[in-house]
Amino acid sequence: MENGEKKNYESYVVVHNIAKRHNVGTLARSATAFGVSELILVGRRDFNAFGSHGSTSHLRFRHFHSLTLACSFLKERDCDICGVEITDNAVAVNEHPFRKSTAFLLGNEGTGLSAKECEICDFFVYIPQFGCGTASLNVTVAASIVLHHFGVWAGFSERSREGNKFLVAEKPINQMRRNYCTETAASVIEERKLKRESAAIGFFDESGKDEAAPNLLDTLFD
Amino acid sequence: MENGEKKNYESYVVVHNIAKRHNVGTLARSATAFGVSELILVGRRDFNAFGSHGSTSHLRFRHFHSLTLACSFLKERDCDICGVEITDNAVAVNEHPFRKSTAFLLGNEGTGLSAKECEICDFFVYIPQFGCGTASLNVTVAASIVLHHFGVWAGFSERSREGNKFLVAEKPINQMRRNYCTETAASVIEERKLKRESAAIGFFDESGKDEAAPNLLDTLFD
Repeated sequence: MENGEKKNYESYVVVHNIAKRHNVGTLARSATAFGVSELILVGRRDFNAFGSHGSTSHLRFRHFHSLTLACSFLKERDCDICGVEITDNAVAVNEHPFRKSTAFLLGNEGTGLSAKECEICDFFVYIPQFGCGTASLNVTVAASIVLHHFGVWAGFSERSREGNKFLVAEKPINQMRRNYCTETAASVIEERKLKRESAAIGFFDESGKDEAAPNLLDTLFD
Repeated sequence: MENGEKKNYESYVVVHNIAKRHNVGTLARSATAFGVSELILVGRRDFNAFGSHGSTSHLRFRHFHSLTLACSFLKERDCDICGVEITDNAVAVNEHPFRKSTAFLLGNEGTGLSAKECEICDFFVYIPQFGCGTASLNVTVAASIVLHHFGVWAGFSERSREGNKFLVAEKPINQMRRNYCTETAASVIEERKLKRESAAIGFFDESGKDEAAPNLLDTLFD
């Protein structure tokens, strides 16, 4: 089915176990470019917005403490969960094996999707490679290619352009916390608990790899 | 023409004026993943291999001092030159407006392709965006999407896989200098001249943005 009847399909990105949190920043930039509805963080919800070019303020974020909760949420919305991983039964992404709204689950940069992560996937896509020099793609590059294909398949409306740039919407005035969606009182309580724990264990790692400290989205936690 | 008769098409990437040289490292990783024949650097030939994951040793590099020289080389090889830029007459890359072997000219991250760069292009492709949060994509992400589409169009053979990784070839034993192609005695002389000049003006910038110093490919200059 290629651009048949254009329903209001949506795409989601699920980030469970990304090792390098600055990858989430560049991922957010591509996610908003390709019309992703929400970026869903599972487990740790801190990340580094380096590379996002301000796009994080235009993207809705959602957080779950476990993959099971994220999965329930997506199933309630009638989403397929698509693992981006080279598995035996994975389909080349350019074949567009999509059926409806889809959440893309990205593997860890080094180890890919775990067995537990694979279990919640309805199907898998991979990106064919043609050269001999690398075993895999950068996680943001892989996600971007997949999201681009989904947008083409789903018939998303193309964003207006001005000159050689796509038009960027005005920044939401009150962007702090607002674009983190929380559903229930229980989740707010759990979130506060997590916040206290996070404060206790120290929030950001000390590797020195995460640049651009002023962009850190810890302010989301008010 | 979608995967018609499969000729031996080739793809090239031309890097003229990339501002952030660490982008060349991640670009090299995608280039080798998508079967690019050569990465052609015009003007400055120093770059940072951070993000390449070792793939630079599997990729052929070529250097020209001017865009005109690079253009002549590509025309001798009967290549189209395709600008990756949002111009009025650019075609969406997913429509595969390719005809034969193609060299992809990438614009500077901030300013895109200059008028002079656009002049040598036979046609342009752009990547449709569907969301409101960013004016453009990261240069490596954009290049990767384009190279992926070209590989699909050209019918490049898919690389073998083992488990959930594509197989990586063995590293060439003597990788220094070897994968830089130089054509003529004149170019070697000009290269040495450039090297002296570069040594005089200081080779790498001082922004501190380029990490992973041990990976710097200045050793290519022996």
